[in-house]
Amino acid sequence: MRLSKFPLHTTKETPADAEVVSHQLMLRAGYIRKLGAGLYSWLPLGLRVLQRIEAVVREEMNRAGSLELLMPSVHPAELWQESGRWQQMGEEMLRFKDRHQNDFAYGPTHEEVICHHFRQDFRSYKQLPVSFYQVQTKFRDERRPRFGVMRSREFIMKDAYSFHMDKDDLAREYLNMREAYTRIFTRLGVDFRVVKADSGNIGGAASEEFHVLAGSGEDLLAVSDSGPYAANVEAAETLPSEQPRAAATAAMEKVSTPGQKTCEQVSKFLDVPLTGKVKLLVVQGAEGGLVAIALRGDHQLNEIKAARHPAVASPLRLADPADVQRVFGCEVGYLGPVGCPVPLIADHAAAALADFVCGANDNDHHLRGVNWGRDCAEPESLDLRMIAEGDPSPDGQGAIRFVRGIEGGHIFQLGRKYSTAMGLSVLDDKGASVTPEMGCYGIGITRLAAAVIEQSFDAAGIIWPDAIAPFRVILCPIGLDKSETVRVAVETLYGELLGTGVDVLLDDRGNRPGAMFADADLIGIPHRIVVGDKGLAGQQFEYKHRRADKAEMIAATTAAVLEKLGA
Amino acid sequence: MRLSKFPLHTTKETPADAEVVSHQLMLRAGYIRKLGAGLYSWLPLGLRVLQRIEAVVREEMNRAGSLELLMPSVHPAELWQESGRWQQMGEEMLRFKDRHQNDFAYGPTHEEVICHHFRQDFRSYKQLPVSFYQVQTKFRDERRPRFGVMRSREFIMKDAYSFHMDKDDLAREYLNMREAYTRIFTRLGVDFRVVKADSGNIGGAASEEFHVLAGSGEDLLAVSDSGPYAANVEAAETLPSEQPRAAATAAMEKVSTPGQKTCEQVSKFLDVPLTGKVKLLVVQGAEGGLVAIALRGDHQLNEIKAARHPAVASPLRLADPADVQRVFGCEVGYLGPVGCPVPLIADHAAAALADFVCGANDNDHHLRGVNWGRDCAEPESLDLRMIAEGDPSPDGQGAIRFVRGIEGGHIFQLGRKYSTAMGLSVLDDKGASVTPEMGCYGIGITRLAAAVIEQSFDAAGIIWPDAIAPFRVILCPIGLDKSETVRVAVETLYGELLGTGVDVLLDDRGNRPGAMFADADLIGIPHRIVVGDKGLAGQQFEYKHRRADKAEMIAATTAAVLEKLGA
Repeated sequence: MRLSKFPLHTTKETPADAEVVSHQLMLRAGYIRKLGAGLYSWLPLGLRVLQRIEAVVREEMNRAGSLELLMPSVHPAELWQESGRWQQMGEEMLRFKDRHQNDFAYGPTHEEVICHHFRQDFRSYKQLPVSFYQVQTKFRDERRPRFGVMRSREFIMKDAYSFHMDKDDLAREYLNMREAYTRIFTRLGVDFRVVKADSGNIGGAASEEFHVLAGSGEDLLAVSDSGPYAANVEAAETLPSEQPRAAATAAMEKVSTPGQKTCEQVSKFLDVPLTGKVKLLVVQGAEGGLVAIALRGDHQLNEIKAARHPAVASPLRLADPADVQRVFGCEVGYLGPVGCPVPLIADHAAAALADFVCGANDNDHHLRGVNWGRDCAEPESLDLRMIAEGDPSPDGQGAIRFVRGIEGGHIFQLGRKYSTAMGLSVLDDKGASVTPEMGCYGIGITRLAAAVIEQSFDAAGIIWPDAIAPFRVILCPIGLDKSETVRVAVETLYGELLGTGVDVLLDDRGNRPGAMFADADLIGIPHRIVVGDKGLAGQQFEYKHRRADKAEMIAATTAAVLEKLGA
Repeated sequence: MRLSKFPLHTTKETPADAEVVSHQLMLRAGYIRKLGAGLYSWLPLGLRVLQRIEAVVREEMNRAGSLELLMPSVHPAELWQESGRWQQMGEEMLRFKDRHQNDFAYGPTHEEVICHHFRQDFRSYKQLPVSFYQVQTKFRDERRPRFGVMRSREFIMKDAYSFHMDKDDLAREYLNMREAYTRIFTRLGVDFRVVKADSGNIGGAASEEFHVLAGSGEDLLAVSDSGPYAANVEAAETLPSEQPRAAATAAMEKVSTPGQKTCEQVSKFLDVPLTGKVKLLVVQGAEGGLVAIALRGDHQLNEIKAARHPAVASPLRLADPADVQRVFGCEVGYLGPVGCPVPLIADHAAAALADFVCGANDNDHHLRGVNWGRDCAEPESLDLRMIAEGDPSPDGQGAIRFVRGIEGGHIFQLGRKYSTAMGLSVLDDKGASVTPEMGCYGIGITRLAAAVIEQSFDAAGIIWPDAIAPFRVILCPIGLDKSETVRVAVETLYGELLGTGVDVLLDDRGNRPGAMFADADLIGIPHRIVVGDKGLAGQQFEYKHRRADKAEMIAATTAAVLEKLGA
């Protein structure tokens, strides 16, 4: 493509209302334009990126045996009423009436619609398993759309739905999709992690997210520094120590700690490490009353984990300090397990301590040399805390570090939630009616484009991976209007690269080198070739990769350029 | 693709609520499924057809220099208020409020949005001309959606918009688009005509439609039997006769025609042909009063043409018979130009008659041997009638016949209607502000799929042109489970065809030949290869084109098959 026929709309100014780098750069480089809150048009440059992503997604979904179809964006309310989600979905679902005053929604997802079609055409186990996908526009009426196309209201998703006779076959397809997604994210050239999205009730493998790693990511992830483990911080398990608890060596002793209420204050006052202190949090019980939760002094409560305990109210609610004062007879800063007047559960790490420090359940006093089983009851030991950097990875490989990620994909074993609600059934090989198991699998196509930028940019602009770049290489001729040698050389190279199928951009606008390079860097073309009289005098082009600090001279041949492109 | 991995959903029953053939066949063959009124999902088979059409459209639009982008489907009301169409568009525009109670519409077309983007990024004549297109989902809330995807509410369009410094450049791009559309419709393999959509005020070339010819088409077209001329019947011009009017030979004579009010009655009663009679229609005048319109007895008034006359009220309204009786002193059946008490205009064909018959403006009486200029004033002679079959084509090539068509594309010189309303301006080479000229160009992608079927089907099902077929060839093995010879032969052929890039479907479901053939015919695959022991004994496959009456034997080689496919 020639830039004389393909208008760029680049600016140096950072748009005032763009908070994140990808949003700023996509506006500055002319990839997108805003139409309204959470509504963006994709200019020709941007659409090329989307189409590259879509092509990879389609190829891998097809390879994985999923069948592409296309469902409407406008959904009759009746279907959503059938599943119960017409009521459950909040204002995020855009609803409207047609001219006949019938209710509709702009589909935010398509479980109901695919179930509707499934029950029309699928009757027998012989037709299963089956998987469908679509690349389609969706709308979610976010209260505060932001970050450009990262969290827009109208967006493009690849969503897929699979149907199975039993859980084993669903699990097989889930892994098949996991592999397809891994191929997709790998081919797109992004640094990503497969993240456990739910450590909980429906099994660890039931839901995973594909995160693009980026410092600006909205999600905090716990990843292994030397293995594949990755989980949302809230979802990461912590393991009990493999070593047995040390034997008690000290006698329990009550010490005066006037005004020392926080773990940090006590730790400093008594000169013991935070890791040698037990702190007590008091929460509402599931059936009234209070429950105490013991944590190591340096650890944070994971509210999701704690709320799963049958004795604890869900969602978790901290006890009123006045109630704590009344029941414990002291302020919140001096609570401890010795003589604890309410049921107590302990995190593994707190339960593993010996000779520890804790509150004395007496204002301005703590205990030291405390031991479980001797000075107070052995507690129920559970995983109740947030994972911390440096913790051993739950899969046993390496230690945990925290990174930030942007969710680009999500795979999910739905089970029979929708197939039951929508009355799906097929006959098995014995003629019995079976409600199929379902899986669903999504990739945010428009969001991915932005997520890649969050991961890959510098002060000059975007740095696209080859696979997603709108053009793979840009040719910058110096003095195009003055030098016939340059004109012939660059036109020849352009024609020959086109002939080999390389997506090549020719900057034939006659701009000065600085302006040409600034545009090329801003829009993020991975490879740049400069054609000038100086280089041509020695039969050379100048080559620079977008990430490289310096340009290098290469032979002025199409073959040498192709080698640099890795094409 | 193997049918064991690509479920077909075919039925023999014609769906009760499907009126037209394409709708019936698309449902029966499993191309589409209904979700709600005017809402259809495209099953994998159907989506393949859409994607074929889209690919051809994209290739030709790119070749024509148009740049693809993608605009949102949800539009802020403000933009439509700016153009004035928020008020003008009726209930066909689907409107809704978001969670913050702001007004939006599901875009039925994108003139406002493209203008919004244009004015953000285009400032100078150096950036023009420019043309953008998108392939995008639109919604029009038809009062009575019908004919399946032919007139659905949610549909896919390719819409394009161009911007120009002046009318000449707009006209140039209009022709460029006309050629691109011609290539598109030709490549899709459909029988089509480029039809003048408006013969009127803004010039003959300002708007043309691309019609797929089909007996079931909603539009009646006047086409030349031996040239390219085609127009909507309402828009077709008629030419004045090239021969001068014959000289008067008869004397005017009043004859009694009791009860003979219609032209047919008079013609029979007086034994003169309809083509020798002048009839008078009386309509409301533009400024009150009445106007008489003279037509030849066999011709029909074209109301659009007549209403363009400055003396005639627009839109056209026939005069009240009581008013006619009062002014002419006789009933409507006996009107004539002799002594006509109101202004009279005549169609060219009526004005060309000599020695004609007409009403005497006296009940139960007509005149014969009447001549313009002698017995009554020479009338103003105009094109006022509907074109008729057998008329000379207005372009001078051949005679007119009527055919029916389905509008599949539309190209339009918009001029400055939207660019003025939306405040677009660019600076010309002298620094003066210019409002750009606009063109718009649409193709109904989803409708085209149905239109092709209306043109190309038989009792057994759909007959796809090669370019649109979801698969080009289907392989039907006979006795796949029993014959290793058949299995090896068909698998080899399948693999080799895939290797050459042919879209091949293998019916590996193990069905009986009759069922296989019925499915292949219904879904409309253009080429069929039967592989059976009987043929293979003589090193032969059976080949049949979907349109052929009989199958033929060909050599059992991939090369022989490819030759038949024309691939």
